[in-house]
Parts: sequence; structure tokens; C-alpha cells
Amino acid sequence: MPSALPDYSVYLVSDRRTLPGHTVLSVAQAAIRGGAGAVQLREKAGPLRDVLALGRALLTLTRPAGIPLIVNDRVDVALLLGAEGVHVGQADLPAAEARKLIGPDRILGVSVTNLEETEAALRDGADYLGAGDIFGTRSKDDACPPMGLDLLRRIVRASPVPVVAIGGITAQNTPAVIRTGAAGVAVISAVFGAPHPEAATRALKTLIEHTRQSL
Amino acid sequence: MPSALPDYSVYLVSDRRTLPGHTVLSVAQAAIRGGAGAVQLREKAGPLRDVLALGRALLTLTRPAGIPLIVNDRVDVALLLGAEGVHVGQADLPAAEARKLIGPDRILGVSVTNLEETEAALRDGADYLGAGDIFGTRSKDDACPPMGLDLLRRIVRASPVPVVAIGGITAQNTPAVIRTGAAGVAVISAVFGAPHPEAATRALKTLIEHTRQSL
Repeated sequence: MPSALPDYSVYLVSDRRTLPGHTVLSVAQAAIRGGAGAVQLREKAGPLRDVLALGRALLTLTRPAGIPLIVNDRVDVALLLGAEGVHVGQADLPAAEARKLIGPDRILGVSVTNLEETEAALRDGADYLGAGDIFGTRSKDDACPPMGLDLLRRIVRASPVPVVAIGGITAQNTPAVIRTGAAGVAVISAVFGAPHPEAATRALKTLIEHTRQSL
Repeated sequence: MPSALPDYSVYLVSDRRTLPGHTVLSVAQAAIRGGAGAVQLREKAGPLRDVLALGRALLTLTRPAGIPLIVNDRVDVALLLGAEGVHVGQADLPAAEARKLIGPDRILGVSVTNLEETEAALRDGADYLGAGDIFGTRSKDDACPPMGLDLLRRIVRASPVPVVAIGGITAQNTPAVIRTGAAGVAVISAVFGAPHPEAATRALKTLIEHTRQSL
């Protein structure tokens, strides 16, 4: 398990709807080469044996790179994989319950859409927050109305733990996101939908670093 | 945790689509009074906090009755509830993986649709099998074509552990199911769709006992 705090600057969230010639694994590998600092296994459909197999394959990429693999929703899958963390949404296991199962050391990420959920997630021991949907995404079916940057900024101010912005993130809007003080951007389409995932990740990473230097 | 082997004769599987005036809890309570020997918490939709709450409420009924609560699919939910068992389908966590998480003592049930899956489930340490869909059910969306009684009989013969038949079970076809040697019938609609769930359960239980006596 990585002992240093993860670099959430570019946080890759898995998506099976890859472009032709790509697979989840090939995109993840490219994104890690391009500087992704965390990977989330997010598979809402299909047999769980396939999700476990994908998770085990992803660990062979993330472990040598020293970055965490974080499993969305299914704490049982995270435990079986020995993954570094779990990420729960508001309709998943409550954060405090997930914490009971994963123990104090694994990473617990929680999705929040407003300040009330932010306070609850912090109280329940979240190690980072996933805030969104910021701009309106096409990657997730269950997202709420877009949050916008003002609310994101207030969540960042209220949170002592890193806040990762998710939902409709592109190279165009990433600087504005980072200027709110967010710790990074969670990306699905921006990397999985890119013809060159490594270059797309590296470009986002560079953009984020430049934006931070200009703050 | 009940130490005796459960009586799977009438195995109630939860369904939120209750009749007016009923709730999952009221139906479960009635079914337990009517002689149900096991209850499965099977909730495929809705926030998991609600599923946990329902599970905790069900335990207040099943524990005093000395019958197991078995959680469908979500091993993490089963662990949080301290439920007596889990039930996995072919698209859920593989049985051997579920066993790793629940340990040797909790009940592991596995859904099977053919002899090959039966052999695999037994190899993986299933404590009982759920065989079906026997007659074609309207309660589950993801069921395969009906299995029929001949295949059920072959599964029962191949299995040293109890086989519970599921799918389209009614009072009319229950005697034929029990004559295959099945340990019981798993029921959703036959109890949740009945105006008098206690009477419906008791009628099934009595029918099963009479059928066994006539074998």
C-alpha cells in the first residue's frame, strides 16, 4: 500500500466503453505513463468475476507505479483485491459503514454534491472527496444537475481533505477547476475518449501544474 | 447464528413490490409465523443504506425465530449485518471468492442453472444450491429459460447439499418439485403476492410435509 499521500491531480476512473484499439488496461497503462496519480475501478455492469479479473490486472499496473487502485461501490470487491481504497457514492454503502469494513488504513473516498454531504462525509472519515458533477457529464448515467465552480469552491474551502472534481472535465475547463483549490480532476471521457490517452493525461497533468504555479 | 441446519422447505426471498397494506417486514413476519425456515434479503435497486436498514429490521424477526437471514449478492452488506449467510448468482462474486470473505461458518448459497454449475458450486463450498428458474418466473428480470423438473431432479441427485428450487413456484406445482427430492421451494410472488402471506406460507409448508410423507 502506498505510504505517501496519493497525487490526485489526474485521477483516472475506468470505463469499458473504450475507443477501438484500446482496452481498459491499455488506457490505464497509458494514463499511468502520462502521470495519472490514482485509478478507480468503476464497473457497474457485467459479471463480477470479470470485474475481479480486471481489478487484478489493474493492480499489476498500479502497484509498480506506486499509485492506489480504488474500487467504486463494492467494498467486498476491494477487500478481495486487496485494493488500496474504496469510493462510495451517496446511494452506495454509507461511508461510516464502508470504513468499518476496510479498517482505518485504506483510502475512503466519498462522492458529494453539496455542503451537507461534504460535512457528513468528513464526519464519517473520508480521506478525499469526489465533488461533482461539476459541468454535466456524459460518462455517468446517475449524475445530478451540474454543480458548477462556485459550489465546488465552497466545498474545497470546507474540506481539510483533498477534493477531486468530477464530471465533464476537459483540458479547456481544468484550469478553472484547479483555481478553486481542488486537488485534482477525475477523468473518464477526457482520457478514455482520447485517441492518445497517454498524451491526453500528460497534457492535463502539465496544465494542472502550470495552473498551480500561477496561483 | 443458528447451529442446526436450516429448514429450507419454504425459503422466503424478499421483494419490495408488496401488495397494498403490506411491507417487506410485515410479509416476512407473517411468513415466519407461517413456517418459513429461511429468509433471503434480495434488493437489487435503491440506496444501500435502505437495504442495510431493511436487513437490520429483518434480523429482529429472524434471530428470535432462529432462522437464517441470507443476503443476496452483496457480501459487504452481509458482513455489516452479521447475517448468517450470503447467496451468490453466476454473475455475482464467484462462490470461492465469497467464501474467502465470509469464512467457513457462514452459509454460502449458490444459484445454479445446470449440472456444470452445480459441480462448480459444490467444489467451491456451497452449503446449499438454489436451482432454477424451474417454471419461468415473473419475479426476477435476469432469469434464464425455465429448467423444468427433469433437470432439477438430476441436480438434486448430483448434490450432497440441500437444493432449493426457485422460479414460478406455486401451491399447484410444489408437490412435483418436492418429489424430485428438493429440500424446499424458494418463493417470492407465492408469498409476497398473496393477500394472506401467513396462510400462504403455512399452506405451502403443510403441502410439502404431506408430499414428503407420501414419498
